[in-house]
Amino acid sequence: MKKFVNEVDNILSESLIGFGKAHSDIINVNLSPDFVSRKNKPNKDKVSLISGGGSGHEPLHGGFVGYGMLDAACPGQVFSAPTPDQMEAASNEVYHNKGILFIVKNYSGDIMNFEMAADMIDHANQTVIVNDDVAVEDSTYTTGRRGVAGTMIVEKTIGSLAETGASLDECKNFGDHVNNMTASMGVAFSSCTVPAAGKPTFELSADEMEFGVGIHGEPGRRREKIKSANDLTKEILDNILEDLKPNNNQEVLLHVNGFGGTPLMELYLLFECGQKLLEKKNIVVTRSLVGNYTTSLEMAGGSFTITKLDENIVNHWDSPVHTSSLRWKI
Amino acid sequence: MKKFVNEVDNILSESLIGFGKAHSDIINVNLSPDFVSRKNKPNKDKVSLISGGGSGHEPLHGGFVGYGMLDAACPGQVFSAPTPDQMEAASNEVYHNKGILFIVKNYSGDIMNFEMAADMIDHANQTVIVNDDVAVEDSTYTTGRRGVAGTMIVEKTIGSLAETGASLDECKNFGDHVNNMTASMGVAFSSCTVPAAGKPTFELSADEMEFGVGIHGEPGRRREKIKSANDLTKEILDNILEDLKPNNNQEVLLHVNGFGGTPLMELYLLFECGQKLLEKKNIVVTRSLVGNYTTSLEMAGGSFTITKLDENIVNHWDSPVHTSSLRWKI
Repeated sequence: MKKFVNEVDNILSESLIGFGKAHSDIINVNLSPDFVSRKNKPNKDKVSLISGGGSGHEPLHGGFVGYGMLDAACPGQVFSAPTPDQMEAASNEVYHNKGILFIVKNYSGDIMNFEMAADMIDHANQTVIVNDDVAVEDSTYTTGRRGVAGTMIVEKTIGSLAETGASLDECKNFGDHVNNMTASMGVAFSSCTVPAAGKPTFELSADEMEFGVGIHGEPGRRREKIKSANDLTKEILDNILEDLKPNNNQEVLLHVNGFGGTPLMELYLLFECGQKLLEKKNIVVTRSLVGNYTTSLEMAGGSFTITKLDENIVNHWDSPVHTSSLRWKI
Repeated sequence: MKKFVNEVDNILSESLIGFGKAHSDIINVNLSPDFVSRKNKPNKDKVSLISGGGSGHEPLHGGFVGYGMLDAACPGQVFSAPTPDQMEAASNEVYHNKGILFIVKNYSGDIMNFEMAADMIDHANQTVIVNDDVAVEDSTYTTGRRGVAGTMIVEKTIGSLAETGASLDECKNFGDHVNNMTASMGVAFSSCTVPAAGKPTFELSADEMEFGVGIHGEPGRRREKIKSANDLTKEILDNILEDLKPNNNQEVLLHVNGFGGTPLMELYLLFECGQKLLEKKNIVVTRSLVGNYTTSLEMAGGSFTITKLDENIVNHWDSPVHTSSLRWKI
């Protein structure tokens, strides 16, 4: 296993300490229980947004803690759900008089542990479950669809709404709405290696890809021969659009997400394939995001995410944000 | 070869078109000759900063075109120098009454082609050569030291100075100064695959690394067995500090750069190793940057860069910037 590591058992804590030091102007890192929280407290009452999940998807979620997005993130071990004491401690740290909203990707372990945390905390709380992956209905770690790269779009937009002083119900409803407007699907060219396992999660032959892969390397729809970027794009977007059923001239956010091991050059090429195809279908890309935002360690491959935009979603997407991995207008 | 690609010959142009569409608020993309330029013209006379080099290092350089950084970037084919007509066309596009400053990484092909461009253009021009890599003196493509991840620090800081209306000489001298204050060194765990070659540039066995690797996968000092992150950090930073000879309590910018195929989690772990070691040596990390900024396609590995800070460099590092891959305070 070729990784920058001292001892496998300490990867998460050493990485979190480095993360905290590198961004000491934006976040605090707490260890045992592990959570990342906003350094600068909000200057008015607001709903506190807390997300989390297995590590290995960085910058999701810790990279999105800060003004205009998350109040806290709870990282589990690599590809493992965080434990309820993490969410409990984070809730107590970032509660700001308007309740707690959990944003949880739809994996059985995460759902269970966030539910336990919801029972443990004294503050009013609600949960938005993100399930944007149209690849498979149930899968290895999931009942129902998986939550993938659309999660950060949900986090950005609710984060913005929460800054306006919106109520817990308003934030919860808006999060559900953005999730409903969002769909994703991806493809893997290689596996990743979970440090504690020390070997690749799965094997693909030299000309194969996993179509509809999950962000932990879990199986998608099928294995097949690699196709051209245009053909892949068509197949992925057909599935996404079948789910979203956009109107003619629908304005959308198009997000091309890299899984960690694919060069930016290819991700922009993929964006071009997607934009071109959507234009032909009279779907108008008015917002875009290209890069490694929801990764699977060093897995090669990527995904498309589309969010159907309305005035509210656009405004909350465009609003200022100040996190370590997403920052604008501030 | 597993890549998102339609035809190998079109990778660069399709990627550039996608890049232009994804960031149409910040940049324009010109094809044949290929260059990326700032969308919004400066509102006062300023020195125009133009960089460029082989593609495959994204976001360097195109991702750093915009307010507060570059005026234009000229991408060559993957790992190949851009041709002089690209720099000539870019110069004519972005000239803004105060001369042209080329920022060039020290590779023979780049140096030669930027020199030819300098002769071709009618505007006053100067060149800053970046040679921050302390790994080797001469190498495969270089006479003298190579220019690597420190280049973006030179680009950010001169970019800021140029926005103040500084003269061509002032920008040139400041760029040389920042380059002198900056040193880098890296290590590779895997090769990358240049699309036109279709196979890995070099082979490393399962427990080997290339110590002091170049950003095209060219050889460094030696091949050796992989070491712990702490041991690697010590060896790399010893070399960097021997070059920079910092004073006691020297304030520095510490940049951990990923080559494209290494997870963010490991890069933050590496940052922690570096920060801890520098603290022991009474060197104070007051600015930090962690992420994939100067990549080698999907190569696994990373590098450390240290810039010794003075008041000028800090101010020009902190100032507002608005590019597709580096953005703050705007």
